[in-house]
Amino acid sequence: MKALLLVAHGSRRQQSNDEVVLLAEKLKAICSEQYQIVHAGFLELADTLIPDGIKLCIDDGATSIIVLPYFLNSGRHVVEDIPTIVNETEALYPQVDINIASHLGASDKMIEILMSCANQVK
Amino acid sequence: MKALLLVAHGSRRQQSNDEVVLLAEKLKAICSEQYQIVHAGFLELADTLIPDGIKLCIDDGATSIIVLPYFLNSGRHVVEDIPTIVNETEALYPQVDINIASHLGASDKMIEILMSCANQVK
Repeated sequence: MKALLLVAHGSRRQQSNDEVVLLAEKLKAICSEQYQIVHAGFLELADTLIPDGIKLCIDDGATSIIVLPYFLNSGRHVVEDIPTIVNETEALYPQVDINIASHLGASDKMIEILMSCANQVK
Repeated sequence: MKALLLVAHGSRRQQSNDEVVLLAEKLKAICSEQYQIVHAGFLELADTLIPDGIKLCIDDGATSIIVLPYFLNSGRHVVEDIPTIVNETEALYPQVDINIASHLGASDKMIEILMSCANQVK
């Protein structure tokens, strides 16, 4: 079974973390044919850290996991921290294939989504 | 003339700020029919702050400006800081109409862009 793990930075504001969890739930509802398992995980400042999120996916039966970094910039978190944590965690589960997707900010569709935000202004 | 001002947080890492400026340039290239003027501005930690970005747009001839918050979460920056700065700056230019779009994270298209990132993983 294929899983998506949406990974955000994490915030001291519970509402910010809740928004990410809600987004993961929306993803799950919409993409269930392609990804049977969807969870949210955080780099820091939240209860479910990245290794916890990976474990949740595996406990649900995931055999492959795509980690999806919900980050706009290719900073240290995207380039170093997330890959390091994912690699360390992957070593604990050799039977599971884990890959990291491009971070959100690198998407070709960013222009489209920004135009959509701008065009909704009355 | 209509302008877009892409507003990001700003970072001590010059590369992060450069990525935002590059994104604004892509927006300009693609959306020039609808928005003749596009600039980037930052909340902090960068040379071009939000009032500077608004002034750049006005100096280029903007009569209306849409401020586009390049933020994922509806935190204090989106809810309080950006509106306060935009309102204070707008008061200096009563002839210009300035509106703030929804922040990026609130877009209905977020699911689509995340799926696109996930599906690019081999």
